[in-house]
Amino acid sequence: MNDAVQAAALKVVGQRPIRPDGADKVTGRANFGADLRLPGMLTGRVKRSPHAHARIVRIDTAAAAALPGVKAIVTAADFAELGNEAVEHGEGAATLRDVALNCMARHKVLYAGHAVAAVAATSPEIADAALRLIEVEYEVLPHVIDVEEAMAPDAPLLHADLFTKGVTPKPQSPSNVAEKTILGRGDVAKGFAQAERIVEGRYRTAPVHQGYLEPHACVASAGVDGQHHVWCSSQGHFAVRAMCSKILGIELRDIKVTPAEIGGGFGGKTTVYLEPVALALSLKCGRPVRLVMSRSETFEASGPTSGSVIDVKLGASREGVITAAELTIKYQAGAFPGSPVGVACMAALACYSVENVAITGYDVVSNRPKVAAYRAPGAPMVAFAVESCLDELAMQLGIDPIDLRIRNAVKPGTKAVYGATFREIALIETLQAIKAHPHYTAPLGPNQGRGVACGFWFNVGGESSAAVHVDEDGGATVVSSNPDIGGSRAAMAMMAAETLGLPIERVRAIVADTTSIGFSATTGGSRVTFATGMAVVQAAEKVVADLKRRAGLIWECPIEQVQWRDGVASCLDAGKDVKPLTLAEIAGRTGRTGGPLSAEVSLNAQGAGPGFAVHLCDIELDPDTGRATVIRYTAAQDVGRAIHPSYVEGQIQGGVAQGVGWALNEAYVYNAAGVLENPSFLDYRVPVASDLPMIETILVESAPNKRHPFGAKGVGEAPIVPPLAALASALSHVIGTRLTELPLSPPRLLEAIDARPA
Amino acid sequence: MNDAVQAAALKVVGQRPIRPDGADKVTGRANFGADLRLPGMLTGRVKRSPHAHARIVRIDTAAAAALPGVKAIVTAADFAELGNEAVEHGEGAATLRDVALNCMARHKVLYAGHAVAAVAATSPEIADAALRLIEVEYEVLPHVIDVEEAMAPDAPLLHADLFTKGVTPKPQSPSNVAEKTILGRGDVAKGFAQAERIVEGRYRTAPVHQGYLEPHACVASAGVDGQHHVWCSSQGHFAVRAMCSKILGIELRDIKVTPAEIGGGFGGKTTVYLEPVALALSLKCGRPVRLVMSRSETFEASGPTSGSVIDVKLGASREGVITAAELTIKYQAGAFPGSPVGVACMAALACYSVENVAITGYDVVSNRPKVAAYRAPGAPMVAFAVESCLDELAMQLGIDPIDLRIRNAVKPGTKAVYGATFREIALIETLQAIKAHPHYTAPLGPNQGRGVACGFWFNVGGESSAAVHVDEDGGATVVSSNPDIGGSRAAMAMMAAETLGLPIERVRAIVADTTSIGFSATTGGSRVTFATGMAVVQAAEKVVADLKRRAGLIWECPIEQVQWRDGVASCLDAGKDVKPLTLAEIAGRTGRTGGPLSAEVSLNAQGAGPGFAVHLCDIELDPDTGRATVIRYTAAQDVGRAIHPSYVEGQIQGGVAQGVGWALNEAYVYNAAGVLENPSFLDYRVPVASDLPMIETILVESAPNKRHPFGAKGVGEAPIVPPLAALASALSHVIGTRLTELPLSPPRLLEAIDARPA
Repeated sequence: MNDAVQAAALKVVGQRPIRPDGADKVTGRANFGADLRLPGMLTGRVKRSPHAHARIVRIDTAAAAALPGVKAIVTAADFAELGNEAVEHGEGAATLRDVALNCMARHKVLYAGHAVAAVAATSPEIADAALRLIEVEYEVLPHVIDVEEAMAPDAPLLHADLFTKGVTPKPQSPSNVAEKTILGRGDVAKGFAQAERIVEGRYRTAPVHQGYLEPHACVASAGVDGQHHVWCSSQGHFAVRAMCSKILGIELRDIKVTPAEIGGGFGGKTTVYLEPVALALSLKCGRPVRLVMSRSETFEASGPTSGSVIDVKLGASREGVITAAELTIKYQAGAFPGSPVGVACMAALACYSVENVAITGYDVVSNRPKVAAYRAPGAPMVAFAVESCLDELAMQLGIDPIDLRIRNAVKPGTKAVYGATFREIALIETLQAIKAHPHYTAPLGPNQGRGVACGFWFNVGGESSAAVHVDEDGGATVVSSNPDIGGSRAAMAMMAAETLGLPIERVRAIVADTTSIGFSATTGGSRVTFATGMAVVQAAEKVVADLKRRAGLIWECPIEQVQWRDGVASCLDAGKDVKPLTLAEIAGRTGRTGGPLSAEVSLNAQGAGPGFAVHLCDIELDPDTGRATVIRYTAAQDVGRAIHPSYVEGQIQGGVAQGVGWALNEAYVYNAAGVLENPSFLDYRVPVASDLPMIETILVESAPNKRHPFGAKGVGEAPIVPPLAALASALSHVIGTRLTELPLSPPRLLEAIDARPA
Repeated sequence: MNDAVQAAALKVVGQRPIRPDGADKVTGRANFGADLRLPGMLTGRVKRSPHAHARIVRIDTAAAAALPGVKAIVTAADFAELGNEAVEHGEGAATLRDVALNCMARHKVLYAGHAVAAVAATSPEIADAALRLIEVEYEVLPHVIDVEEAMAPDAPLLHADLFTKGVTPKPQSPSNVAEKTILGRGDVAKGFAQAERIVEGRYRTAPVHQGYLEPHACVASAGVDGQHHVWCSSQGHFAVRAMCSKILGIELRDIKVTPAEIGGGFGGKTTVYLEPVALALSLKCGRPVRLVMSRSETFEASGPTSGSVIDVKLGASREGVITAAELTIKYQAGAFPGSPVGVACMAALACYSVENVAITGYDVVSNRPKVAAYRAPGAPMVAFAVESCLDELAMQLGIDPIDLRIRNAVKPGTKAVYGATFREIALIETLQAIKAHPHYTAPLGPNQGRGVACGFWFNVGGESSAAVHVDEDGGATVVSSNPDIGGSRAAMAMMAAETLGLPIERVRAIVADTTSIGFSATTGGSRVTFATGMAVVQAAEKVVADLKRRAGLIWECPIEQVQWRDGVASCLDAGKDVKPLTLAEIAGRTGRTGGPLSAEVSLNAQGAGPGFAVHLCDIELDPDTGRATVIRYTAAQDVGRAIHPSYVEGQIQGGVAQGVGWALNEAYVYNAAGVLENPSFLDYRVPVASDLPMIETILVESAPNKRHPFGAKGVGEAPIVPPLAALASALSHVIGTRLTELPLSPPRLLEAIDARPA
């Protein structure tokens, strides 16, 4: 935390002003990705593979092209073949080639739902008819869905040119294992030898979708003069611009991307599916083209997170000190390499100070949609495994599960397994906050169980830009370029207001398009309040310095003699007979002091500071139906400092809700042909409001982040990490059997009840 | 001119790249004020007074409000009564009260076409029907149209609270003369006593409309949370925001104004007519409202420039030195005070070094639409009078008209009549350029005449903001907030490209809305290339400094050792074994050197530097029909330095074309009731392409403006100043009579032919 800003002195930060986007969103005035109408706009549609794995023998578009009203058709033939240059988008990096091939299959389809062609037509009906007229001849190939089956030596191969990275010697034959990751330290054998108890387990999680309410949607309009415009719902319009630019071979300055409001992303909108296709269609016909995924397309063709198989072995001393940990983590990547297994290896034991660690991770392709980032990508699954084992260990050692965790918890100065040395962190305080909460000792009823789990997320900083403009009447506008997915407009306005000394009502925050503000990295990694916030504060500080200079000019007094406090300049030189000047008074006479007040700052923010979450939940199991109901949930989190506490609480509650769905219900159901059988919200069951209790939150602010002017840490991702393990442990306690496979849906719970030793 | 930038070294400035807005405009993709469609958008319509002057006794909106589909009605009762605070907009300043009353009449209507009510409805038909259902009871008052009749003591009074400013003692009774302006120096009586010849004349010009192709148009959308959005075609969206803010009592930060493309403004779009009304309607019903003027509404209710009556008396020595000048200038202001007569007094003799001067100006209200700025506001009429007299003087003294002007022309160091001391100006060189041109000595045929005239315009600087953002691939975007009315996107991109050392193809310029960039004053006064250009260059220079710093970081070399040239950094330290780095290479690794490259600059630009134009024209008169045809036209102008010469030539040609219309055809025809009889382009005759020859231009670049990095001066307004006098003199020579009243339409020319002494 900036020493100059003491918590007690804060006037705006920490308050709960009304959200600036609320009214537009509840009244339907907000414009999402599919809301734009342009003159002459065409409807685009994507033809998708019915097969999980097949060679494309021939695509004949002649009949479709001849249909009146069809204005453009594209297939892979309309896209250049690309190399393996990496593209940054969100937390991970994929190769450009894979992003392009995922947008439009070339030679082979790799999953049912993989795009093979797209049309643009004057009506949805004509576009649909045209899709039916496109003839695609396939040679169906054997497919593989399961991660372990895909690792088998005789599994159907997705990519003939994929050789496992991270193994020596370099493999001679291709494999579905894209990469092997090894991370560790100390001597695991020695550690296990020192253990009083060793617990082991194999944990499985299903792939789950981010479940954003708004499907992918965009409008692209190509200009005859090479100046193109894309409107879309994304987590990063600069990243959309970069990917369209590289896939279509167009310079960045020739593509303007305007961010629509985003109806949820959760990591899933950090890549592109439609935008390059829509732009390619528009380039072909010169008219604007709108492409919107249906819900089933969203399930079939946009990335969920990885399903996983995780083997864990933990050893601990009699006192509960973890002496060794060994993990083998297998993550589905979907059709192209790039699961978050590397991140999972790093996150697996980040909450604990363990000397002897050996972690092996496998990134495995199979005939499923390519995974995408999903809130704390990779961390919840591995936390499910590790925290479940810790729960088991606590039971076996007879130690309170919170005490066991406190005993091993990382603290400032601890060197994490993944290499970083922690600075301002408050995991122990967060654990203590849960232990001290009445919930922890409240009595449980029949068929009720209680679980606790920890979660960790790195949080990132990175490149961000922001500008502050002061209006002639003394109000201010804050410009940033990160789509507001979780309250960033509110947070940016508050930090600017705090810095300028204005009431929050006088500051408006907006999200600018790619032409109007400097580059910012994608909204992801819980980076925006930290990194873009830092740019906002620095821009506001520049404005304050300028305000002081202007006051000095007006008073003919050196700037050192000008003090800025609460939006007012005053002169410290008692000899000067001058009245203090408000921001509005200075803003009203900028013509005489050098012109308008504005400042833009771009930076690469470092030192985001990780977040830790500790969740406690009570669950009740209906032994007749197998239905589990969360009856009480308390989530504590090390948040550094909450800029707008309601939004932070909302992030925590949202993370819990998604974690509950992941733990209890969500799963992809494939038939024998490798086709998804439940691509709708009717059959893919996410929790709705009535499924959840009020989720109580505890914001732990004892370790503000010193690298951020107000102490903020990222808060959006950590809260999805603990729920899987917390719920599974709670249910394990009810049933009396360690539950190791998600989702804990009624059939599976009934099975566990039935399998229980009498 | 910036000494560091020598003309010979310029790589982009002075070239003629393709205009960045051309393709969109010729293909219809550009969005003008009326092109926006929003969900739920209503059609607005304005009910206007049929009377030139009347008291509003009663407005009954009940029947209209009851019509199904009518969602909102506003009258003056919906607007607060305002004080006389001045509002800056464009070159002049009006009072806020008058701007508001001009948007919506209260108590009285002051001209036929004055708005009395407005409706918003679900269809144009319903809106029109609702207008008919609004009952307005008027008490018709005597009206006055002519400027001199309005000055008469017994003239119908428009404003009971209007007392002539600028006279002492303060008048006791109200008057239609809003202000009397006196400007002068020396001793006029003595000057005339020294004169060999004295010429006198009374000159009259008709009010003329700017004739922009696109009528006023806007969409306003009020938010339930007090965040409002206005889209409109204007010359200054910050000014639209300011006027809406003050008229409706809404803070600036709560109104976002997005500039549409502008289909011509010429000064006429520096004020508001519709925007506050549309926003008031939207505030009442919560739905977006579109208001678009018809062409007849544009003529009846938006400001033309003043009609005028000007008395001139000039005396000169035998050698042609002007010894004295006396002018009385009467300008129509329309229904509210604010003609450009003050500016006219200052501009009248700005081309000439005259010792003894007495100028009196009158700003006079009458029952016509309030005048608005029109290209070099006020200057063409007074130049018509002065330059016609000079032509007469040259004839009488037997001196070549160019030589006469050179003898009296201002030069660097001359103190102008209006007070400024000229710096870098090239009037003499511009006169010499015309004299040296073959056109000047080409033979004339029968019924052909030749005229020459000078013109002056101040040009202004003022507050501007601009930003430069470098893309990851090394392209750049330039952001400014001035609507592109005459090529500013091209000029801004070129100046940024020149400064950065990039080819122009790699720089895109955009016009940002009021939230995305710092404040800029309205596009007017020929200020943008100068003032906003200066902000662009300073922002680009900041980026260059940052690029050098980054290169120094990469090379571990002090910034003083880094040279930036042609978009490439090189290290001057021969001891360092480093390769030069291109802008793209540095831009591609900003993450490692401190984040994205961006800079925003706001300033108040001073030292715009005036412009001088000298025009030469040949005209042929058909003595049977009275039709005059311009057969050859050559226009020379002191432009400082032309950033994009084609645009400068286009500005000159456009100014000439408008001047030709003003001189030959354009006029408002009122009937006895004070109602405009020719509110359409069928009856109000502007020149079309077939009316004009190719207009040849000469860009005089011998006096670049030292206050601008590349030497630019404003160029858009000076070229409309000379044509009135040049054409009138040419026709005077054909007919042999001094023609003193515009327009020189066929009936008037036939009259002059008939009245000629045998």
